[in-house]
Amino acid sequence: MKGVRLGVAGIGLIGGSIALRARRLGARITGFDADPAALREARARGAVDDVAADLASLARSSDVLVIALPVDATVKALQTLAPPDRDVDAWPSLIVDVASVKTAVGAAAGDVPHFVATHPLAGRERGGIGAADAALFAGRTWAYIPPGDAALETRVRAFIAAMEAEAVAVTAADHDAIVALTSHLPQALSVILGAALAEAVHEDPRVADLCGPGMLSMLRLARSPESVWRPIVAENAAPIASRLRSFAGQLVATAERLERGDVSRLMSFFGDARRVAGALEERFAALTRS
Amino acid sequence: MKGVRLGVAGIGLIGGSIALRARRLGARITGFDADPAALREARARGAVDDVAADLASLARSSDVLVIALPVDATVKALQTLAPPDRDVDAWPSLIVDVASVKTAVGAAAGDVPHFVATHPLAGRERGGIGAADAALFAGRTWAYIPPGDAALETRVRAFIAAMEAEAVAVTAADHDAIVALTSHLPQALSVILGAALAEAVHEDPRVADLCGPGMLSMLRLARSPESVWRPIVAENAAPIASRLRSFAGQLVATAERLERGDVSRLMSFFGDARRVAGALEERFAALTRS
Repeated sequence: MKGVRLGVAGIGLIGGSIALRARRLGARITGFDADPAALREARARGAVDDVAADLASLARSSDVLVIALPVDATVKALQTLAPPDRDVDAWPSLIVDVASVKTAVGAAAGDVPHFVATHPLAGRERGGIGAADAALFAGRTWAYIPPGDAALETRVRAFIAAMEAEAVAVTAADHDAIVALTSHLPQALSVILGAALAEAVHEDPRVADLCGPGMLSMLRLARSPESVWRPIVAENAAPIASRLRSFAGQLVATAERLERGDVSRLMSFFGDARRVAGALEERFAALTRS
Repeated sequence: MKGVRLGVAGIGLIGGSIALRARRLGARITGFDADPAALREARARGAVDDVAADLASLARSSDVLVIALPVDATVKALQTLAPPDRDVDAWPSLIVDVASVKTAVGAAAGDVPHFVATHPLAGRERGGIGAADAALFAGRTWAYIPPGDAALETRVRAFIAAMEAEAVAVTAADHDAIVALTSHLPQALSVILGAALAEAVHEDPRVADLCGPGMLSMLRLARSPESVWRPIVAENAAPIASRLRSFAGQLVATAERLERGDVSRLMSFFGDARRVAGALEERFAALTRS
């Protein structure tokens, strides 16, 4: 990315990590963030060279523009980037977002040239520029929605490769249905389990005495901030609802068998579950080691 | 416990930890285990002084007898300990089990004098005598079913206090209903989620590419061995079924609201869930520190 002018809107964990990695490869980074403190910290950490006053001027001064905002803010940013009078010659050759829901983003980006919707599968417990890391994406997968333009697709794949991630092409609808299972369902289960436990403890304090480390591990995700999840849930409500219903169906079918004294259905899940959990753990352990 | 003759049937994580703690307090430990390797390792670790040939001779030579076996084996052990011709004067003054389901144990123990059903809320990822630790129960809760005999209740509370745990009295039915929520439901959710993920990955390998660390943390429990869980599920099938149904009801109610574009129900769970998860984490962190 030597000599590339990279604009980053939103200097948090993801935007900051992209900036750090690109700068290491020789890009010149201009940052924009609604929070002046984040921009100051980004400068102090060496993540940005310059600061833009607003998104429109950031777009005008960038060869590649990254919108690294929550999904609702991403939708708004794309709407402001689609004015009727833009000059496409002075436009970035690639604009990507990194939000975790893609259908809403694709709909909002209809009139934005050179835009590709993407989603890096990387994150940390702690957010913000302070947790940013040039190696955050190394070995991770990075989904993108094929833009239907071979040159643009080559550019986005090169960008993802520069981040050391593995590009995975997926339609927006498939993406949102899959992350509803792989990310939003686990989050919902943890939060709903936590709320059920809280209610039971309120009714009988001995419930808290009889909690072990297993319950604690299922509530780790429940500590994620509401502010991060509200826009995700709002933008992906239908696929999440569908996963919740189908999971509830599994629970009821399992309960019916248990009520007849038949443990075979629940026990039959252990083998597959252990294998898939082991494969995931190995994958993440390999990333942590590398 | 100075001078007390403690018999331990089942020298695994729990039985071994009880033996190590009691021996530190001056008890003399006799062990019995169906696995000769476990007994050898228990001797090598200094957890047992002597070895008994069978459960009946272990009972005859013990002042206090601990049955530290899986719930199905505990039920069988109690049945063998209830012969019509026993001599109560040569009988332990206290017999406890440590299995994680209590109704079935109580039913099996009807004819065993001086028996109190108990359940220490302690455990480790790794089982076996190799993971045993004299401090395993320090600061943990230890449930017991009040035996309806004040002298016997005093003895069991003293035993739990000697293990440095906090005694919590609960009926067998309440115990089993509570652990169905606090322990068996989390396990079932993790395993059913893992099986659903395995099926989705089988249909579309990109599903594995789009998994993040959140999914991994919800599958940690799914790696627990089937052999540990089968007897628990079999002995507590009805309370587990009831918790699964009620949790499924919460999922469906949440899905219905999401289908109407209403995120408020799911989002309203975040606050309570975060508070209860934080309280549990603090409690466990305090135990780890102490």
